Amino acid sequence: MNLTRRRIQFGYRFLLAGCFAIFAVSICSVASAADPLPSWNDGPAKKAILEFVTTVTDKSSKDYVEPAERIATFDNDGTLWVEYPMYTQVLFSFDRVKELAPQHPEWKTEQPFKALLAGDMKTVGASGMKGLMEIILATHSGMTAAEFEQDATHWLASTRQPRFKRLYPECIYQPQLELLAYLRANGFKTFIVSGGGIQFMRPMTEKAYGIPRSQVIGSSVVSEFQIKEGKPVLVRMPKIDFINDKAGKPVGIYEHIGRRPILAFGNSDSDMQMIEYTTGGEGRRLGLFVHHTDADREYAYDRKSHVGTLDKALDQADANGWIIVDMKKDWKSVFPVK
Amino acid sequence: MNLTRRRIQFGYRFLLAGCFAIFAVSICSVASAADPLPSWNDGPAKKAILEFVTTVTDKSSKDYVEPAERIATFDNDGTLWVEYPMYTQVLFSFDRVKELAPQHPEWKTEQPFKALLAGDMKTVGASGMKGLMEIILATHSGMTAAEFEQDATHWLASTRQPRFKRLYPECIYQPQLELLAYLRANGFKTFIVSGGGIQFMRPMTEKAYGIPRSQVIGSSVVSEFQIKEGKPVLVRMPKIDFINDKAGKPVGIYEHIGRRPILAFGNSDSDMQMIEYTTGGEGRRLGLFVHHTDADREYAYDRKSHVGTLDKALDQADANGWIIVDMKKDWKSVFPVK
Repeated sequence: MNLTRRRIQFGYRFLLAGCFAIFAVSICSVASAADPLPSWNDGPAKKAILEFVTTVTDKSSKDYVEPAERIATFDNDGTLWVEYPMYTQVLFSFDRVKELAPQHPEWKTEQPFKALLAGDMKTVGASGMKGLMEIILATHSGMTAAEFEQDATHWLASTRQPRFKRLYPECIYQPQLELLAYLRANGFKTFIVSGGGIQFMRPMTEKAYGIPRSQVIGSSVVSEFQIKEGKPVLVRMPKIDFINDKAGKPVGIYEHIGRRPILAFGNSDSDMQMIEYTTGGEGRRLGLFVHHTDADREYAYDRKSHVGTLDKALDQADANGWIIVDMKKDWKSVFPVK
Repeated sequence: MNLTRRRIQFGYRFLLAGCFAIFAVSICSVASAADPLPSWNDGPAKKAILEFVTTVTDKSSKDYVEPAERIATFDNDGTLWVEYPMYTQVLFSFDRVKELAPQHPEWKTEQPFKALLAGDMKTVGASGMKGLMEIILATHSGMTAAEFEQDATHWLASTRQPRFKRLYPECIYQPQLELLAYLRANGFKTFIVSGGGIQFMRPMTEKAYGIPRSQVIGSSVVSEFQIKEGKPVLVRMPKIDFINDKAGKPVGIYEHIGRRPILAFGNSDSDMQMIEYTTGGEGRRLGLFVHHTDADREYAYDRKSHVGTLDKALDQADANGWIIVDMKKDWKSVFPVK
């Protein structure tokens, strides 16, 4: 997770006092039967996607790509689902600290737990990356794989995003669901490549995105095989194993997929290396970034945001041929109709 | 790789002087059209497999398993292809040392390289696991991902197993190819879970087994994302990242698949934890081991072997309901007809 001290000084109040405006259901235009991306407005982004997929699947084209090589990777936070005003998994960690507090009397005096339990988010923020990592490890380790899955599943099925009043797995982007389906219909294998926790995402990716667990790549803690009460289990240890962010993303892709993607989609500078790696390969490639420009329907943030900072990638996009997808202009609707 | 000092004292002569008997093409019996496993003899192993697959795919059964949960994991060395008298990847490393020697004048005096270059396998063996790791790291790191892939691909396409006179990717087991295909036809996703190097296996698994790269799990070195001569590449570093063997196998499964398999197939004590983990889950499960009992058609080895030791698992199989597949009795043929 790409969180600097500055970034997490966001204040919990912000979340609680978030705008409770009723989510405006986007107007569904009648899509032509032939349009595989009905929630995308006609424009340079949609055109680039359609042209790319048509070309690499056209056997008569010099840019034809064999199905096995049709790998598409998507960041998760801010690319497939809402990440603003705070990464979902961080909110999960905060909630878990509150639930686990009775079993941890020491948290009454230890920072950043003491501050978090008192709702003093300024002090939590001041504890920086180190404090955040302590919170994450305390809530993501010390249990079996099955227990953690239960924690994540329960939280994801019961916690609503304050502004949109939707469960988090419902705060996903309709245009991206169409793109994932369109790619798969054209022989692509779609993967998530996220800085988020690999096992936090897996309980929801299959249902939400149609992406099976084995096609989810993320950050991880060290796990150990143990026999516990006579049963073989995996136990999550309080130690970071791998951070699948920035330069870690191409590494995660190499380990899990073993092929260089031909299409990659991100939304922040943390995705730059993945998109560099993707578009730096031979043959036709496509790199895209979601630009959050839509304060009315979602959020507007980029260069100076505390989450999902899009700054360098925005400057370098043109020179590299990366497509900047303008949420406000390019997306006809944002969320799926419930 | 599970190699003890004793194990690698095998002597290169053994390989070179290997029995050059012409591979006896197994008699293809006319298989009934309904038999999905024509190279398996009727017997308890085949019966157990057919009964298991029929049950977990039968919607009316209490043991029905949803397609997404139908995960089958296979060890590679000794389970899907020949591992005797030495793991293929170790032989690749030895050959690579000879090819790389001109670029490494220091190897003329440094052990175990000096001994290896002089063909003194006794000294190489005496260098133990430490020496072997030096040889493996020297030949598996210091290059880009693409360069390593080229090395492995070239070697696999040009080096023959001395006894069977086949390329190594042709020294695969016909009954297992049928089993993999049968499982996939029944909605299973098939994975390789091997102690071998993940990137060494990937160039051959798709063609040989129909298993895509992203479904191959193995040991790895640390990789780094770098810009080299203006191009974004992954560079393999001289440091072990993960050993996907013994208790590492369930961990590799958790990281890469994120589900507990319902079927696992191995051939040695190194696969025990994977099979324990698999069969220790709830509902119907199947764990199997290849027992190498066939000195005529392949090799006969188990408890005291220097590769693929099958000892504890053999003792514990009955009590755990694990199936021991007797190569001599259970397999009608061993290798695919060329």
